[in-house]
Amino acid sequence: MSVAPWRSPLARALHRNRSLVYARYLQLATVRANNRPANRTVVFRGFLEDTNQLKFITDARSEKADQIEHQPWAEACWYFPNTREQFRITGCLTLVGSDNSDPDLDKARMITWQELSDAARLQFAWADPGKPRVQDPAAFNPPPPDATQPLANFCLLLLDPMQVDHLELKGEPQNRYLYSLDQQLQWYSQEINP
Amino acid sequence: MSVAPWRSPLARALHRNRSLVYARYLQLATVRANNRPANRTVVFRGFLEDTNQLKFITDARSEKADQIEHQPWAEACWYFPNTREQFRITGCLTLVGSDNSDPDLDKARMITWQELSDAARLQFAWADPGKPRVQDPAAFNPPPPDATQPLANFCLLLLDPMQVDHLELKGEPQNRYLYSLDQQLQWYSQEINP
Repeated sequence: MSVAPWRSPLARALHRNRSLVYARYLQLATVRANNRPANRTVVFRGFLEDTNQLKFITDARSEKADQIEHQPWAEACWYFPNTREQFRITGCLTLVGSDNSDPDLDKARMITWQELSDAARLQFAWADPGKPRVQDPAAFNPPPPDATQPLANFCLLLLDPMQVDHLELKGEPQNRYLYSLDQQLQWYSQEINP
Repeated sequence: MSVAPWRSPLARALHRNRSLVYARYLQLATVRANNRPANRTVVFRGFLEDTNQLKFITDARSEKADQIEHQPWAEACWYFPNTREQFRITGCLTLVGSDNSDPDLDKARMITWQELSDAARLQFAWADPGKPRVQDPAAFNPPPPDATQPLANFCLLLLDPMQVDHLELKGEPQNRYLYSLDQQLQWYSQEINP
């Protein structure tokens, strides 16, 4: 695979905003079964090796797991405060759970689990997210899960971009570039009005 | 109208994050005509007087104007970096354009225009957003529009919340509250698992 042309401005934005831990947070929009949008903050966890796919993690018990089965299209909106630029990344999501049968993705899921902090891993052992609050404190203080073998509800979430809209608010007046995949799955870019 | 119960934690978050200009930026998700999500950063411009509706502005020429006609449901995701909390605000959008016939909304649109900075107003006189870049610099250097009378393509955009999901990451373990409108259009809240 070739590295997509939007990877370079995105890498630059990540570098220039590296002083802000939340520069790695972005908002991921999906569509619910009732055709209404959903939107939540997720943490960027790098690219899947040798691809242009963005890695996130999620819980199989979360609403977005169901939403993705119904409609895999998503749009991530990523705003970088220091450099005042926005990337809108449109693409398809793949949920890699415990029932996944692709050995490469299975390995990527395992490695992602192993790279998490203890605190991040622990959240997958908490009580069902979004359900009425369990008042027993033990529900949020479980024994630490195995650091090498992911819990069954742990999912690697991949976003495979088809279009990237990059807006630089700092330009004079502003700059905006649209990167798209053509029929031959080659990236091309065009400058558009901000 | 009564002030919704989620207004108080939201006001507190705005106050505690007031050192960050971008704490007033949030991500607004809509659904496109092809049933795929769209997501972009918008600026919070306060509440419509005597309501719980959030005010934003947009250009009638932007894609979201079309999306809203097709599907008025939206979800805003608002992350506050200093306090590490997120509000997910689900509701219906109303686009208030030059053809609007409600005198109160017409007045609100006018006032919102008048309260904008000169630079913000100027953007509504720029070349068509999202179209191939106009190379003539004059397209982005138009004469300043009238500061009292909005340009025809200027829209006030209102989000009328039906549900608000508030997550506090700083809690031990974390706190999450779901505010919903019941059949009598009264707000009720429940504590849910993070």
